[in-house]
Amino acid sequence: MSQRNIRVKATGESAVEDQDVEIVERKGIGHPDSICDGVAESVSRALAQEYLDRYGTVLHYNTDETQLVAGTAAPAFGGGEVLDPIYLLVVGRATKTYEGQRFPAESIALEAARDYLDETFPDLDVGKDVIVDVKLGEGSGDLQEVFGEEGTVPMANDTSYGVGHAPLTETEQIVLNTERSLNGQYGDENPAVGQDVKVMGKREGDHIDVTVAVAIIDHYVQDMADYRDVIEGVREHVTELAGEYTDRDVTVHVNTADDYEDGAIYLTTTGTSAEQGDDGSVGRGNRANGLITPNRPMSMEATSGKNPVNHIGKIYNLLSTEIAHSVAEQVEGIREVQVRLLSQIGQPIDNPHVADAQLVTEEGVSVGDVEREVEAAIDEELANITDVTKNVIEGKLSTF
Amino acid sequence: MSQRNIRVKATGESAVEDQDVEIVERKGIGHPDSICDGVAESVSRALAQEYLDRYGTVLHYNTDETQLVAGTAAPAFGGGEVLDPIYLLVVGRATKTYEGQRFPAESIALEAARDYLDETFPDLDVGKDVIVDVKLGEGSGDLQEVFGEEGTVPMANDTSYGVGHAPLTETEQIVLNTERSLNGQYGDENPAVGQDVKVMGKREGDHIDVTVAVAIIDHYVQDMADYRDVIEGVREHVTELAGEYTDRDVTVHVNTADDYEDGAIYLTTTGTSAEQGDDGSVGRGNRANGLITPNRPMSMEATSGKNPVNHIGKIYNLLSTEIAHSVAEQVEGIREVQVRLLSQIGQPIDNPHVADAQLVTEEGVSVGDVEREVEAAIDEELANITDVTKNVIEGKLSTF
Amino acid sequence: MSQRNIRVKATGESAVEDQDVEIVERKGIGHPDSICDGVAESVSRALAQEYLDRYGTVLHYNTDETQLVAGTAAPAFGGGEVLDPIYLLVVGRATKTYEGQRFPAESIALEAARDYLDETFPDLDVGKDVIVDVKLGEGSGDLQEVFGEEGTVPMANDTSYGVGHAPLTETEQIVLNTERSLNGQYGDENPAVGQDVKVMGKREGDHIDVTVAVAIIDHYVQDMADYRDVIEGVREHVTELAGEYTDRDVTVHVNTADDYEDGAIYLTTTGTSAEQGDDGSVGRGNRANGLITPNRPMSMEATSGKNPVNHIGKIYNLLSTEIAHSVAEQVEGIREVQVRLLSQIGQPIDNPHVADAQLVTEEGVSVGDVEREVEAAIDEELANITDVTKNVIEGKLSTF
Amino acid sequence: MSQRNIRVKATGESAVEDQDVEIVERKGIGHPDSICDGVAESVSRALAQEYLDRYGTVLHYNTDETQLVAGTAAPAFGGGEVLDPIYLLVVGRATKTYEGQRFPAESIALEAARDYLDETFPDLDVGKDVIVDVKLGEGSGDLQEVFGEEGTVPMANDTSYGVGHAPLTETEQIVLNTERSLNGQYGDENPAVGQDVKVMGKREGDHIDVTVAVAIIDHYVQDMADYRDVIEGVREHVTELAGEYTDRDVTVHVNTADDYEDGAIYLTTTGTSAEQGDDGSVGRGNRANGLITPNRPMSMEATSGKNPVNHIGKIYNLLSTEIAHSVAEQVEGIREVQVRLLSQIGQPIDNPHVADAQLVTEEGVSVGDVEREVEAAIDEELANITDVTKNVIEGKLSTF
Repeated sequence: MSQRNIRVKATGESAVEDQDVEIVERKGIGHPDSICDGVAESVSRALAQEYLDRYGTVLHYNTDETQLVAGTAAPAFGGGEVLDPIYLLVVGRATKTYEGQRFPAESIALEAARDYLDETFPDLDVGKDVIVDVKLGEGSGDLQEVFGEEGTVPMANDTSYGVGHAPLTETEQIVLNTERSLNGQYGDENPAVGQDVKVMGKREGDHIDVTVAVAIIDHYVQDMADYRDVIEGVREHVTELAGEYTDRDVTVHVNTADDYEDGAIYLTTTGTSAEQGDDGSVGRGNRANGLITPNRPMSMEATSGKNPVNHIGKIYNLLSTEIAHSVAEQVEGIREVQVRLLSQIGQPIDNPHVADAQLVTEEGVSVGDVEREVEAAIDEELANITDVTKNVIEGKLSTF
Repeated sequence: MSQRNIRVKATGESAVEDQDVEIVERKGIGHPDSICDGVAESVSRALAQEYLDRYGTVLHYNTDETQLVAGTAAPAFGGGEVLDPIYLLVVGRATKTYEGQRFPAESIALEAARDYLDETFPDLDVGKDVIVDVKLGEGSGDLQEVFGEEGTVPMANDTSYGVGHAPLTETEQIVLNTERSLNGQYGDENPAVGQDVKVMGKREGDHIDVTVAVAIIDHYVQDMADYRDVIEGVREHVTELAGEYTDRDVTVHVNTADDYEDGAIYLTTTGTSAEQGDDGSVGRGNRANGLITPNRPMSMEATSGKNPVNHIGKIYNLLSTEIAHSVAEQVEGIREVQVRLLSQIGQPIDNPHVADAQLVTEEGVSVGDVEREVEAAIDEELANITDVTKNVIEGKLSTF
Repeated sequence: MSQRNIRVKATGESAVEDQDVEIVERKGIGHPDSICDGVAESVSRALAQEYLDRYGTVLHYNTDETQLVAGTAAPAFGGGEVLDPIYLLVVGRATKTYEGQRFPAESIALEAARDYLDETFPDLDVGKDVIVDVKLGEGSGDLQEVFGEEGTVPMANDTSYGVGHAPLTETEQIVLNTERSLNGQYGDENPAVGQDVKVMGKREGDHIDVTVAVAIIDHYVQDMADYRDVIEGVREHVTELAGEYTDRDVTVHVNTADDYEDGAIYLTTTGTSAEQGDDGSVGRGNRANGLITPNRPMSMEATSGKNPVNHIGKIYNLLSTEIAHSVAEQVEGIREVQVRLLSQIGQPIDNPHVADAQLVTEEGVSVGDVEREVEAAIDEELANITDVTKNVIEGKLSTF
Repeated sequence: MSQRNIRVKATGESAVEDQDVEIVERKGIGHPDSICDGVAESVSRALAQEYLDRYGTVLHYNTDETQLVAGTAAPAFGGGEVLDPIYLLVVGRATKTYEGQRFPAESIALEAARDYLDETFPDLDVGKDVIVDVKLGEGSGDLQEVFGEEGTVPMANDTSYGVGHAPLTETEQIVLNTERSLNGQYGDENPAVGQDVKVMGKREGDHIDVTVAVAIIDHYVQDMADYRDVIEGVREHVTELAGEYTDRDVTVHVNTADDYEDGAIYLTTTGTSAEQGDDGSVGRGNRANGLITPNRPMSMEATSGKNPVNHIGKIYNLLSTEIAHSVAEQVEGIREVQVRLLSQIGQPIDNPHVADAQLVTEEGVSVGDVEREVEAAIDEELANITDVTKNVIEGKLSTF
């Protein structure tokens, strides 16, 4: 056993699954806030990768500030158009000179942002519908230093914390997988389904309401009947999908604000409400685990765009979620685990000030029964903390 | 008693004051994120007031997106200078035409933003150190409608929630009041103390560490000895202040990253790190109660800049805090109360889907003993919900 | 003969071909000012065409203001890179609502600008090396009216004038064709030759100096020897080309500011100096005939981007050049003709206040001998004035 | 007599004063193009002065690119308002690091631009009606070198030329002084007269039409009668003023596009058409002598904002005008003189490749009679060429 300060205890609360009311939300990848998260994280990955390729190490940068200003659009059955482009301002800091050589931080950021939009939004014409602007300054002098030696664990440069939990409740699973499916296989097969999907799950006792707002893409629907078919298709699909995760009673609502008589429906040209009226920015939507969970402690940290080598808030939020899942999967007898990591300035990040796990155990299992196993699982994940950095840079870990 | 759905129950957790580890943070008004919060809220107030003055009602707008791109500065003992101005982009939506008349939303926003900066930052030369840009689009057509009839309670247009708690723990009080004092009377008397004050409180058992990072303004310090005097002054002041709120053992740390030998100190020309290297945006810092409290449930909602007439997230976050304070003050026997309000789409906002209060009572007091009083206090606050709107517009309620 | 006020007379000056000193300049299509001209004119054509397609008529717009802010680049033998993208701001006015329907002026402008850059600059990666921003406002209310009835001649809405001359002197021909060849067939065959070609011709008596500054594209040159080969190739090509237009003594200078010893050469990554240090804007470079000719009267008018339906300055500058060429080609005995058109507010544009032609005739020919023919040629061109508009929209008439 | 290459000869043309048709134009200081000229030149002066103050020498910079994007306004009798602010982008190059010290080029530019607007436009509320943005890059590496030694004459770094003439014709004097008076004493006494004054003079034979377009400021006119009084006052004033410069027949037209019946008048809130619909940029309006004179050779050079130490185009345009005036004043018997200066790369700028003066002499005077005197006057001015730089920096020489 390591010397790490790991604490395991029971939570005083009941498991979220047992609470009376549970609310869960996910803003899909096409929501204006998520667009900003996605752009910021893409820019971050591109910079990190290029620093690695050129210098063998990731230099200082932080690109966790992207501002989206909505455009104006005139959607129409059969295909409308964007009138005023969306404006996207990528903001942050990056090291622009290293060992006397200039580094093309702004060009890389511009390209990464455009490429991300291009790949993610098939009905957004990036050359016509979006203005991508970039303002990347340089950091404070002393922050431009290279991060540590290769292979060593960086030091925490701030007091920060991360929080994660596992396993997901039924409602959380439904919300998360609804969005993933609509933006995954179901979306591929039904191109009318836009990327701006917002899912809210509300469970009261044993009834779950799943409310889905999905931007329908005008090009693929010829009239109101088509539109209603698409909506009904989504409703059926989500209902079926929810059944895979729960035996509770589920009601699915899709685009409830629609008013067919007035013709007020959620029709878009590009698949995102950013085309008309909805601004966005980084860190305002999903937490690092992809959800907004008011029933759980959440970190304020804007994870997307942060430097994954030494930004302790980013690393600890991602890692605490990883740890929670490891514990929940490896250790038997656990109904729910919440992990918090608190950093200690000036100490290696694999050695947090405290790592605490709060457990809800299954009936008949005491915290004492599983304490050692939980500690061991946490300890092992902390020992491999630099994997988080690696996985983030390689795009294997989502941040929103 | 009203028909409102108010629930009162005991929390399962121990009071935060009794938990082993407590972390509390406040970003002062000069922190780049808070600058954005402050600008967004100023712009919001100015728009609301002008809509009221012209039309007798507040029209649709939302200005909860301000992006700050840091400048570059060369601070120096006795007075340095800003090299590249800070860039501030005010973003949002506003009704620009009403009853055939154009409304000067952008000019109002520009002026409000500049005025706020001018009043808040005595050492920031707004005409030279800041570029203020504005991009206010119009909202979706149907959202431009006027909000309700005068004197009626608006309907909730979204499923959202707010959360608040009271009373503040000792650590919370210390953190909040440290910043307020440094940016208040102490700051007035000690002009070297800049507005960018960041306070973190960490309590472990009965020991509280208060870590203060304060931007010192170069114009008022002639040399390193002066600087050290200022820092020592702050340390003593905060230590004394903390003693007013706790009998626990308190250690105060000020500008711990300073390295006097290397000359690496926290010196600024304008009093904010936005002058060099720190970007910011709305909703990334303090919650509506002015604090970041990982030990408590928090809402992700960016409160600043939102329309206070119908933005249910803003109203409920502010109101739940108000309610918690009312309960804690009015009802005897309560150690801690946490209030959550969940909205119900299409219903008047004074009639939430559920208002729940979780209590930690004093020894010898049961929830049943105080339930009725708590319900009554909540009910009364809900009945006066439109006061929140009024107080926000008049600047009487802070949002960050 | 029409009633048009056409005056023909002898000029008092000697023919430019006979003057002691003659200076002629052309900024190639890759010069930052020309980039702006080209973008502005592309945007203009795209708007005009789309108005025609949608409404059968060209609505009010003016896009004669594009600002280019240079980027930063690190060219290198074998291929360098752009560090900070070029920033291009397309500015102007356009009708955005017509008969209750919104017109996508900004999206069209954005796409036209990007497409132009993409087609014109093979080594500029538009998605990575350029930020294209657009700010198109609406015009004054009364200017948004549709221009005239189909098939009628618009009225002049301003007092303006245009000036043109023909035939080109030898020096003018050499300068014009040098750039066209380097940006034409020679450039196609020699991809190392960038689009930013600046040609200055200076004739003193019978000696012509042709000074060419050409941005060499780093990707195609591996070392200094390669570079020198490219330069020598250009020198030989231009020398040969000049011989086609003159029997005078010609000296060609290419990239005279190069210093091979210091390694200070004109190497670029994208083929334009806009990548590093040279800003640009519309109307600052070539006149409507493609040249800058200090020996001749020139109009200050920024022709590119102006509305070709009713902008009298644009039309008259293009038309006066067309007329001069017609006269010079059709009427025998003319060595040089300069045409000026002065508009008359409120009158049809085919009926200028005055159209005057100043002639230098060949020896033995008097103005009286050719006066009628010249008048007839001018009259005919004026009668077909709406062809100018048509040819501009179709891209058949260059404006810079 | 010096070794300078000065040539004096007769012009082949008749004096402009004798030509049939003469056109002269001046865009007043409030015209959008002139606003840009004024801002660019203010920024230039501020930078030059600060370089001098800090380093004793002017470093490389060029700020000859300012782009104005018009705002939107709702003028109204008694006082209207700006709805969307004017956007002004100051663009250029400046040395930002010298001898290891950073130079605050952008902050200086921002302040100079704002101050200029503030001082020049009493009814423009710079904090509310204008967004001033700045993008100043650094120049090419080798251009950042300091210009020459103190007291020495810089070398020409380009082949460029300048052209000037004197004395002004009657029409030129009327046009120039009309604008100066309206923006001078008359404007001071009649605050309803805005700064955006555009004056066009057209002389045909002995009749001069002076057409004045003047932006009237709404705050000072209560109704249409007031407005008409202001217009009539201007008409009378200009008519009287014109009488001081000519005995010819003069007709003055003011705001001819007004239509009192439709209420279509030239009313503004700020005194400039930049508030609504008219964009602008540097170098698109007046030449260095303050006029646009199609009857004369003009240089395309955008003089405002250029570096006055070594930008040969700026210096030669200003100096050639100075020389022409010296010659016209000092040498008797001259009706008109036009001076052209052509630079010689690599040679001191006081030693142009050629300085030629073309004369129209008074009856009875031959060019030979005055040749020596003209040469001497030119020679003396060239010897004092560095005074131009000094006077520009001190704001004694206007550039537009």
